[in-house]
Amino acid sequence: MKTMKIKILFFEGFEALDVFGPVEVFSKAEGIEMSFCSFEGGPIRSAQGFLIMTEILNEVASSDVLFIPGGVGTRTLVEDVAFITKLRTFIENSSLCLSVCTGSALLAKAGVLTGKKATTNKKAYAWATGQDDKVLWQNKARFVVDGKFYTSSGVSAGTDMALTFIADQFGIEKAHEIANRIEYIWSSDPELDPFAVE
Amino acid sequence: MKTMKIKILFFEGFEALDVFGPVEVFSKAEGIEMSFCSFEGGPIRSAQGFLIMTEILNEVASSDVLFIPGGVGTRTLVEDVAFITKLRTFIENSSLCLSVCTGSALLAKAGVLTGKKATTNKKAYAWATGQDDKVLWQNKARFVVDGKFYTSSGVSAGTDMALTFIADQFGIEKAHEIANRIEYIWSSDPELDPFAVE
Repeated sequence: MKTMKIKILFFEGFEALDVFGPVEVFSKAEGIEMSFCSFEGGPIRSAQGFLIMTEILNEVASSDVLFIPGGVGTRTLVEDVAFITKLRTFIENSSLCLSVCTGSALLAKAGVLTGKKATTNKKAYAWATGQDDKVLWQNKARFVVDGKFYTSSGVSAGTDMALTFIADQFGIEKAHEIANRIEYIWSSDPELDPFAVE
Repeated sequence: MKTMKIKILFFEGFEALDVFGPVEVFSKAEGIEMSFCSFEGGPIRSAQGFLIMTEILNEVASSDVLFIPGGVGTRTLVEDVAFITKLRTFIENSSLCLSVCTGSALLAKAGVLTGKKATTNKKAYAWATGQDDKVLWQNKARFVVDGKFYTSSGVSAGTDMALTFIADQFGIEKAHEIANRIEYIWSSDPELDPFAVE
């Protein structure tokens, strides 16, 4: 059976559903082991006000998958040189890197998406895409896969992307089985984007 | 502006998306104040393995809304007389009571759904409905509203129900605005249930 470690990165002001839609999907795939991390460790407050406990993210191995949510916290983190520098190293080390919503603004700021196709939150599109104008930003995409990067549109789109990630890694039958198990109406077409911007 | 307090009840083995889909929706309605609670307080472990910090739920005022998720933890809680007794009092005190997934098994065990229409997780349907066979269980329903009770089908259905709750309480425009803001493809028809059971 295929096994995989996914490191979920939390930061102050992360958006709840950005994380917990995909975490729900990942939790139903036997063989995925998740860890809930932050750079500092300890309790991290979401944009919704609750605290989640995290362990310190010390390293990302070359076999690890890194998952990065968005949220209002990204607005200050793009200006935090130490955070972005550390993040860049971890992203470079990872085997696969997934972001949801404005998580891709952090990736863009770290310079890892230059020349690649990606998408982001459509409600914060100008700000997020402004972090690196050499990314091939997709204004009409529920989610985008380019090389080792999976990026999704805002909040809820992360769950659709997570199921496609499962389909790519564990097979389409497993993805449908998980969607069925969590009674999720999967919008699996990456180009179907009701929230596209001009 | 309408204001509302929603008390989110956590317990060991709660299901992540049962809670955080609705919490995401509620967080975008100005006027809703959430508190993240458990009967014991302190850290509570989800079925997905992470810990969330909670405050002690001491009382539910007659103006409070009570929100109850499901998850594997409900399997033991239905046998916990002290838990069910306390829950029944809190539910009776609440102005409105929402449950997602097997959360309605707890409500059924507490006896508050007798004679009312309700639904539950379609993957655990026989077990959940067996907690009280005098509930008018709906085998084909994304979610059900009866009196002060909102009950939804499994996991993901809670988010659709939460948006309908917003529509009922704050108006349909607010519900559409929130769905748009979180890029959520809202399945708003309570009778549209791809996961219905016979």
